[in-house]
Amino acid sequence: MTVLERFYEGDIRALSRIISHIENGREGYRDVLSRLYDRVGSSLRLGITGPPGAGKSTLVNCLAHRLLKQGHKVGVVAVDPTSPFTGGALLGDRVRMSDFPTDGSFYFRSMATRGASGGLANATDNVTIAYDAFGFDVTLLETVGVGQVELDIVDSCDTVAVVVVPESGDSVQTMKAGLMEIADIFCVNKSDRPGAERIISELRQMLKMRKPPEDKWSIPVVRTVATSTDGVEELEEAINKHRAHMGESGFFEKRRRYQIRKKILTVLRNRFQNEFVDRLREQGDLDQAVDEILAKKTNPFEVGDNLYRRFSA
Amino acid sequence: MTVLERFYEGDIRALSRIISHIENGREGYRDVLSRLYDRVGSSLRLGITGPPGAGKSTLVNCLAHRLLKQGHKVGVVAVDPTSPFTGGALLGDRVRMSDFPTDGSFYFRSMATRGASGGLANATDNVTIAYDAFGFDVTLLETVGVGQVELDIVDSCDTVAVVVVPESGDSVQTMKAGLMEIADIFCVNKSDRPGAERIISELRQMLKMRKPPEDKWSIPVVRTVATSTDGVEELEEAINKHRAHMGESGFFEKRRRYQIRKKILTVLRNRFQNEFVDRLREQGDLDQAVDEILAKKTNPFEVGDNLYRRFSA
Repeated sequence: MTVLERFYEGDIRALSRIISHIENGREGYRDVLSRLYDRVGSSLRLGITGPPGAGKSTLVNCLAHRLLKQGHKVGVVAVDPTSPFTGGALLGDRVRMSDFPTDGSFYFRSMATRGASGGLANATDNVTIAYDAFGFDVTLLETVGVGQVELDIVDSCDTVAVVVVPESGDSVQTMKAGLMEIADIFCVNKSDRPGAERIISELRQMLKMRKPPEDKWSIPVVRTVATSTDGVEELEEAINKHRAHMGESGFFEKRRRYQIRKKILTVLRNRFQNEFVDRLREQGDLDQAVDEILAKKTNPFEVGDNLYRRFSA
Repeated sequence: MTVLERFYEGDIRALSRIISHIENGREGYRDVLSRLYDRVGSSLRLGITGPPGAGKSTLVNCLAHRLLKQGHKVGVVAVDPTSPFTGGALLGDRVRMSDFPTDGSFYFRSMATRGASGGLANATDNVTIAYDAFGFDVTLLETVGVGQVELDIVDSCDTVAVVVVPESGDSVQTMKAGLMEIADIFCVNKSDRPGAERIISELRQMLKMRKPPEDKWSIPVVRTVATSTDGVEELEEAINKHRAHMGESGFFEKRRRYQIRKKILTVLRNRFQNEFVDRLREQGDLDQAVDEILAKKTNPFEVGDNLYRRFSA
């Protein structure tokens, strides 16, 4: 049996191998993705983001357990942007995976591959395609919100929960519009700590001040204490409400359409990178151009233009 | 007089306008860059990176003052990756610029533009080209090392100083090879605080263990207290030593060649993005493709492939 056949039969090790194959951009990985895509259904993609130490992993574990109990099949993908200053440990210690089922109804994958083929956001998106094709109902996508790249990732989700903690209080006021734009739900975790009321009222104040969104969704502020599972039920309810609202208003399809457009363009850019830019790098043309630039005969902008013309002729 | 003529005459406001022009990708910005490049000399580019709160801004200010006193013309560019969780304030409060000369020998620019044309690293690199063409001898490039993008930026420098503080002690052990790869100099700032000796010896230990680098440069560990300018002279000496070593060993030119190659490829990728991808986005082809994908007639990978073939025919 081929790996793909075993994948179709629900073999979790085949899933793992397929993901590695795609992630590392091994030969034929685009064909594999193409074939997986035929099986893509309507698995829900839920993004969880927030600053380091907000308790995102614990929340994700709680949600995964609840979903599994309800009979769902759940895939988790955690994106760890390998900051060299933290040794890639921004996500913190993950609760052991040993209490999760190994019967094919659950899978966890951590994305830390710096050199992921086609970029981290794209590689993560490909994992959600594999999860969907494998038959998972829900994908939980966890990422640390430390940079634009990490936020691009939640851009491929159906619902995004932004997690903050009372300690983030001072910074909430200075939060940029970008965060408001990605949040469908605010979750104040560790809400038994001092400062919780303050951050909740600040968030509500901010939400009141924003101009009414196109999709008419009113962003809820949910309070949780993930370590004792308090409020996780309410978080799940908020997620379900958002899903229902998006479906009824037609914005679910709208968002998916936007994501598909984005994916097409990413595929296109990656082909350009792999088949033109990378090959150029291997040829001698670039070295000659550098010589001429150093001799002041031309400059990188002219050279880039000329190479582009050669390509698009 | 045109802006470019005023730029050539050393008018600092013209410099500011030219940079904005390039940064925002306004009409003809590539021509402007092309013309600036003719004037590019051998301005030294010095990168300063490290975790938030390491005192990078203070260090950069100290270095700038020293260089100015020696008669150099100095440009500073600070990259602030606008994390939505910190409101783009990762760089912290900057010491007021009011004690810097306004006679055209100094300029400071902060890059926080999320939508910078062609990416943040590219936009920053373009600023260094403008500085060089303007006649600055030294460009100080300051960035927070929180993600890969921020590190790509220091990749375009001649010398990179990585700043750490005693508080980073625990994380140094888990620092990934990536940091070792970019550092030409380690600077332990706030070295009057407890834990300084420990982090210095840990760094030295790490440096001993690494395999001998191609350029045979032995990375020094310098201790500073930037707020009282202690050790800044030693840091400057280390920078000069590195510059001399690179020149003698031929690695200065090697690095510059690598950077020019990188720049050519970035220009090429940006043209592809601006002239093919962006135009495609505006046309109806994508919408039709999305319809077909939703109807399961095709998938994003096939569509991307077809579009690519159309382009590269």
